[in-house]
Amino acid sequence: MGNTFGKVFRVTTFGESHGPALGVVIDGCPPGVHLDLEALQQEMNRRRPGHGDLVSSREEPDQVEVLSGFHEGVTLGSPLSLMIRNTGARSCDYDHLADVLRPGHADQSTLAKYGVRDHRGGGRASARETAGRVAAGSVARQLLRTEVGVEVVAWVDAVGAERAPAIDVEAVGREAVDAQAVRCPDPGSAARMREVIERARDEGDSVGAAVSCIARGVPAGWGEPVFDKMSADLAKALMSLPAARAFEVGEGFKALEMKGSEHNDPLVMDGGKVRATTNHAGGMLGGITTGGILRMRVGFKPVPTIAKPQRTVTVLGEETVLRASGRHDPCVGPRAVPAVEAMVLLVLADHYLRLGVAAPS
Amino acid sequence: MGNTFGKVFRVTTFGESHGPALGVVIDGCPPGVHLDLEALQQEMNRRRPGHGDLVSSREEPDQVEVLSGFHEGVTLGSPLSLMIRNTGARSCDYDHLADVLRPGHADQSTLAKYGVRDHRGGGRASARETAGRVAAGSVARQLLRTEVGVEVVAWVDAVGAERAPAIDVEAVGREAVDAQAVRCPDPGSAARMREVIERARDEGDSVGAAVSCIARGVPAGWGEPVFDKMSADLAKALMSLPAARAFEVGEGFKALEMKGSEHNDPLVMDGGKVRATTNHAGGMLGGITTGGILRMRVGFKPVPTIAKPQRTVTVLGEETVLRASGRHDPCVGPRAVPAVEAMVLLVLADHYLRLGVAAPS
Amino acid sequence: MGNTFGKVFRVTTFGESHGPALGVVIDGCPPGVHLDLEALQQEMNRRRPGHGDLVSSREEPDQVEVLSGFHEGVTLGSPLSLMIRNTGARSCDYDHLADVLRPGHADQSTLAKYGVRDHRGGGRASARETAGRVAAGSVARQLLRTEVGVEVVAWVDAVGAERAPAIDVEAVGREAVDAQAVRCPDPGSAARMREVIERARDEGDSVGAAVSCIARGVPAGWGEPVFDKMSADLAKALMSLPAARAFEVGEGFKALEMKGSEHNDPLVMDGGKVRATTNHAGGMLGGITTGGILRMRVGFKPVPTIAKPQRTVTVLGEETVLRASGRHDPCVGPRAVPAVEAMVLLVLADHYLRLGVAAPS
Amino acid sequence: MGNTFGKVFRVTTFGESHGPALGVVIDGCPPGVHLDLEALQQEMNRRRPGHGDLVSSREEPDQVEVLSGFHEGVTLGSPLSLMIRNTGARSCDYDHLADVLRPGHADQSTLAKYGVRDHRGGGRASARETAGRVAAGSVARQLLRTEVGVEVVAWVDAVGAERAPAIDVEAVGREAVDAQAVRCPDPGSAARMREVIERARDEGDSVGAAVSCIARGVPAGWGEPVFDKMSADLAKALMSLPAARAFEVGEGFKALEMKGSEHNDPLVMDGGKVRATTNHAGGMLGGITTGGILRMRVGFKPVPTIAKPQRTVTVLGEETVLRASGRHDPCVGPRAVPAVEAMVLLVLADHYLRLGVAAPS
Repeated sequence: MGNTFGKVFRVTTFGESHGPALGVVIDGCPPGVHLDLEALQQEMNRRRPGHGDLVSSREEPDQVEVLSGFHEGVTLGSPLSLMIRNTGARSCDYDHLADVLRPGHADQSTLAKYGVRDHRGGGRASARETAGRVAAGSVARQLLRTEVGVEVVAWVDAVGAERAPAIDVEAVGREAVDAQAVRCPDPGSAARMREVIERARDEGDSVGAAVSCIARGVPAGWGEPVFDKMSADLAKALMSLPAARAFEVGEGFKALEMKGSEHNDPLVMDGGKVRATTNHAGGMLGGITTGGILRMRVGFKPVPTIAKPQRTVTVLGEETVLRASGRHDPCVGPRAVPAVEAMVLLVLADHYLRLGVAAPS
Repeated sequence: MGNTFGKVFRVTTFGESHGPALGVVIDGCPPGVHLDLEALQQEMNRRRPGHGDLVSSREEPDQVEVLSGFHEGVTLGSPLSLMIRNTGARSCDYDHLADVLRPGHADQSTLAKYGVRDHRGGGRASARETAGRVAAGSVARQLLRTEVGVEVVAWVDAVGAERAPAIDVEAVGREAVDAQAVRCPDPGSAARMREVIERARDEGDSVGAAVSCIARGVPAGWGEPVFDKMSADLAKALMSLPAARAFEVGEGFKALEMKGSEHNDPLVMDGGKVRATTNHAGGMLGGITTGGILRMRVGFKPVPTIAKPQRTVTVLGEETVLRASGRHDPCVGPRAVPAVEAMVLLVLADHYLRLGVAAPS
Repeated sequence: MGNTFGKVFRVTTFGESHGPALGVVIDGCPPGVHLDLEALQQEMNRRRPGHGDLVSSREEPDQVEVLSGFHEGVTLGSPLSLMIRNTGARSCDYDHLADVLRPGHADQSTLAKYGVRDHRGGGRASARETAGRVAAGSVARQLLRTEVGVEVVAWVDAVGAERAPAIDVEAVGREAVDAQAVRCPDPGSAARMREVIERARDEGDSVGAAVSCIARGVPAGWGEPVFDKMSADLAKALMSLPAARAFEVGEGFKALEMKGSEHNDPLVMDGGKVRATTNHAGGMLGGITTGGILRMRVGFKPVPTIAKPQRTVTVLGEETVLRASGRHDPCVGPRAVPAVEAMVLLVLADHYLRLGVAAPS
Repeated sequence: MGNTFGKVFRVTTFGESHGPALGVVIDGCPPGVHLDLEALQQEMNRRRPGHGDLVSSREEPDQVEVLSGFHEGVTLGSPLSLMIRNTGARSCDYDHLADVLRPGHADQSTLAKYGVRDHRGGGRASARETAGRVAAGSVARQLLRTEVGVEVVAWVDAVGAERAPAIDVEAVGREAVDAQAVRCPDPGSAARMREVIERARDEGDSVGAAVSCIARGVPAGWGEPVFDKMSADLAKALMSLPAARAFEVGEGFKALEMKGSEHNDPLVMDGGKVRATTNHAGGMLGGITTGGILRMRVGFKPVPTIAKPQRTVTVLGEETVLRASGRHDPCVGPRAVPAVEAMVLLVLADHYLRLGVAAPS
């Protein structure tokens, strides 16, 4: 259970990192949506490891094949099924891990849960599972861009203690983000983040990161007032990403040091429309969008796979020392950017389509 | 939509803050669970405003009536329906607000969503909606305590810039928390937090807060590896509380400044069992519990209702200045403690009952 | 589990037949729907036993109280909660049944399932559970009548071997149905059905019945093509009624004796619109409505509670003979009519609101 | 929406009949279930058209590829994804149908629903969509056979007016069913049914059929008492099959001509266990299984594609006459047998796994 996300735009991912294929089935995409499969493939390439020199070298074309739900350029309204073959998997790389419970990984907890473990590359807990999410996110992006004009942009906001300055949320775009290998649109910060990452790698260690994300163009009135608050659904979406440990919207934890008189966004009339003069709310009040830019941030822990020796135990209950070999990302931040955008897009597409439900009259 | 939480232990709340009644229907509670209705009522009393001198004075007995699903002390396996009459509602208090969109509240976003607005006291967006959650949380607590031995304790961790020192998560209990009106178990911090709250109130202002929560006694193996990670479901649960703005598990945002070698919890053998020597993971890895204590924290914004004058507009599009009258909580922290515990309990009960699903063989 | 019906117009019923109250929570009713509570109460009265001389004499006012989701005549878009107190319950009537597993009832299967049994009046398996369905059905009826112009009418089609002739599905209405105590709009059949029922009662026995139902004014295009076919959802809805044993749409079982050339409905152009010259399809093809009148039929078994002595066993494993005392409906047909309409209305409201989901663009 | 079936054993099918591939994702299959892929492939072959001389000649190997959720012979507990390439599709066959709304098909209703239509072979409304159901049904069968000892057998019970005599539900098995091309285990009836089918075909016409199905070895206590009655879920499952028009359990429509004293199954003690001396209930009372053999029956309409000329219209609103060319099944019965078994197995697997939910204590 638990492999489906969304209530109307329903996304089910499948696939182990070293099995035959991964993929996603989207049930609930409306008919008649024009899909640009090249744009979708570019999103996959952007998520893929092996490009840039800061990320691990596993080469996977991540070629998406559309199995259903699509004909002559448009969606059919039936389930859209997207499959990616696992071609570059080298499960032998993991043979020496067969018996070791890796610290900081889900090995011990997964074994407690399932009894069975497919140790090859982490199974469903692998970051590779996000491939299906990114594919589905591209469909959501194309739906929302065309029908509503929504734009979602994420970037690396912090690596270790190195934090980017405030980014202009009205202007930030993918070009500026992708211009830096580290995916921080501020070049100075990006250079310093890069140093932090390289230093961690040289030490056989890893480092945490934060990713900020904004959504522009979301109208007021999306989200539900109780359990399915927009902020709550975004929290679940982003905390479901591998290595996510913290989430905030608007001012986030900073809000707790603010006074109500500072945090409340004053409302004024502007050309016949209600407008907030500030956006401390991050575009959401009472779980419902205000029409302002949605702002949120996710904190990721340091990648648990490190070269430094670590104390641990085997499945047979013997203490041992683990020294990871092979090349691994020392920081999840840059690769998390497309996955963060994808999850935000899935939440927005779902709430967009739920509008039809809430107010048919 | 969006008024139901959980997949197996399914909780549906209903009721506007100033309508005839509020309540909750729990579908999925197993039969044969002994329920102590007095303990349930005490949880309601604990959530209720009007006791202590830091919270607003609306007097509501919040008397719970069990309508169904319960007979001679035990649950029947059928829907458990709990109702609370709204007796203390004085909707006239709100008449002067009928036309004003209150800054920091869900008024504008709700109006954009529904067209209809029941302005009396915030409708579903009111903190009063959490009464149903707390009632259901008490059922979850009794189920989990008896069958598994789980204990959930929350406390106020910060008010404004005043933060409590590290609390002993092995020992902290309700007695120490409730001994302080501000619900911080550290007496020195509690005294300083109280000053911060009183100062804000004297200034006609409000202040934010953070609530920490732990769960002891949760075995390894609860949670799902992809979308329904324990950490993701807790994030949604807690971010669905009114005024919640930030959430973290384990080290949370601090994790991003840590190295992998610092953050990974080493595993050792201890009396034939695997044990982590530290718990930076906060009891969850890959979304699945490790057997360690679950640790999490929620950040709440300052209460938006303040006495200070604020610029805003009316539903008719006229600019105005709002000066809230009446007495209001200047800080959501102390009252949020029971609601935080309730939401954590609902998530745990749901994942506990999902175990039966995952591994029947 | 299993106490919620519908995906968008979500109906959760609660309440045991002899507990404090029954009721229903509807999550997903749009805001701004005008609700006539008197009309709703009349539907409840129509379902109620104790009027007419063919049905059991338990006197229950079945007074509906609206607890939430409704203000000044319109729905708020929040959960609509409707409660009915159990005032007439006399659980002592059932004391002699505490230990007996009644043949034809759910006693044995429920005990196997739950271990716990609230023997008083059948608990959730009681026909009384349908009160909540009828209340929710009235809301669905008012929504569909106002917004779409849908009309749903059911009637008793057969009692025992006595079957009504073909009824004019274009014209049949509630007045003609309710003009007969037996709720068959054909007076001659109604008289003969009445005799069949009275004869069964005089013999201390009971008899089965069939209820036909039609829906007029449903546009083409409602329903989903695979699992959630309109015909499949109607089947589930109606087979979930107590004592239902058979279901058919259109020609039903008669279709299997027809040739394709007889059963296919020819299409012609009629004033610029596609029209079928016949309606063997019963208004549904491939699970999707055609624009024709929806036709369906449910078969109910004879009421299992009879005065005649029956062989059975006790919960302690002793063989015994059961002689039911008290007055019981000898035929479920007349009272099933409002419940059949309610379930059809719930399915139609759900699929109507799902339209908003399927085609927002 | 509507492409997922089940609450715990969740089955999502995808694929158009003439797109690249069809398939199914099963989320909720427990880990550690041994799967015999050859047995699964044999179920696919059994469903496939093109063998036997009574069914259409489209040659499709229907080779199942397991994409995920399976490793070294056992399920992993992650989503099990099964894909079947569409190799034999000849969409050119359908070009002459591009503009014609075929009577008795979902063409008109689907067009009304979606606006878009992939006319090639009926899209999702095609009987080919059942391939995914049969694949998932085989997984359910293997799970239920190993863990519980459940056996599900279906057979053709009637073709046109030719009905098989009572079959011994204790003994009937697949060998006897498959020994006849028409899949009726009674050789005399099978011969007569064959004649009925051949005569219809020779006339350029088609004929309806009924399929009976039984499940042996289902313990007492499966199913839920209100909406998710076992009988209601079976009704939905089977009425969701293409061409299904009627459904009954136990005595079905015959029950309405029975007296309560005839229909009630007397209970006796038999070796310390409660046993019913008859099984008019068809193994289900109050929606919950009794421990008796589950008995049900589905009625299918005559196949709508016939060679005889039929009046109809085009999408452009012109009246025309349709003469279907190519070879088509004149009767859905024989091919429906594996699909009926599959749907029954999916319902049973779902309710089996829901048991874990209902009674964890």
